Amino acid sequence: MSDQADSTSRVRQLVLDRARAVLDRNVRGATAANAEDIVTFDVLPPLRNVGADGIRTRTEGWFGGYAEGPGYEVRDLDVVAGDDVAFAYYLYRVTGTLLGGGEVAMWVRATLGMRKVGGEWRIVHEHDSVPFDPESGQALVNLEP
Amino acid sequence: MSDQADSTSRVRQLVLDRARAVLDRNVRGATAANAEDIVTFDVLPPLRNVGADGIRTRTEGWFGGYAEGPGYEVRDLDVVAGDDVAFAYYLYRVTGTLLGGGEVAMWVRATLGMRKVGGEWRIVHEHDSVPFDPESGQALVNLEP
Repeated sequence: MSDQADSTSRVRQLVLDRARAVLDRNVRGATAANAEDIVTFDVLPPLRNVGADGIRTRTEGWFGGYAEGPGYEVRDLDVVAGDDVAFAYYLYRVTGTLLGGGEVAMWVRATLGMRKVGGEWRIVHEHDSVPFDPESGQALVNLEP
Repeated sequence: MSDQADSTSRVRQLVLDRARAVLDRNVRGATAANAEDIVTFDVLPPLRNVGADGIRTRTEGWFGGYAEGPGYEVRDLDVVAGDDVAFAYYLYRVTGTLLGGGEVAMWVRATLGMRKVGGEWRIVHEHDSVPFDPESGQALVNLEP
């Protein structure tokens, strides 16, 4: 396998392993690949966040908010990988029942930026979002791909 | 300059040239680096779009909707570049007066994924968004970095 094909395969596996960790409500697995100084643009505010610690806390809170779930289905995953820089983008569907009883079923867009450090791929940037309706200003959480 | 420093410098310049083209209402310049099969996750729907043609049309419409502007100020630009794969992420502030008279002043998050093809950097993926308020479901267009 060429180096580039090997990088692509490893990055793809990283994304799928992370998705699996969410299904297992495994905070450590879901955040293991994050660089300490990761810069995130999340679905919820703030605009921009720096640092892996905040993500661990937020991931715990995210899992803890679900009575059932969260489900996390990955779709349309594309990976572009060089020897030591890569990015991946995909859609994911979050589903489940919140502790308060509400049902969640929302498609989200995700982009990951990665760098290979000491032989390991690390996520240095993550961007997650849904689009919004310019007329109503409402986030569009019911779109289907 | 090392190859990687050179890549970083060129990608940074690409982002700034594109921002300059927006200020000049130059559709060609603002879309010149897009790969034909670019995959975009835009601020407005749909969830996911494929192809450079749609972006040219949308960019024309975007510029045409402003009586004054759009302004486009780039902030917190980070670039991670290898020999032939790179990504960049930053905040930008869109400002101006719409044809209908409304004022726009909105911070947006942007992530670009790039690949070097035939010696030229091409944008193969772009993700632009604002976060939303989980209580009201409203897109947060008034956040400050």
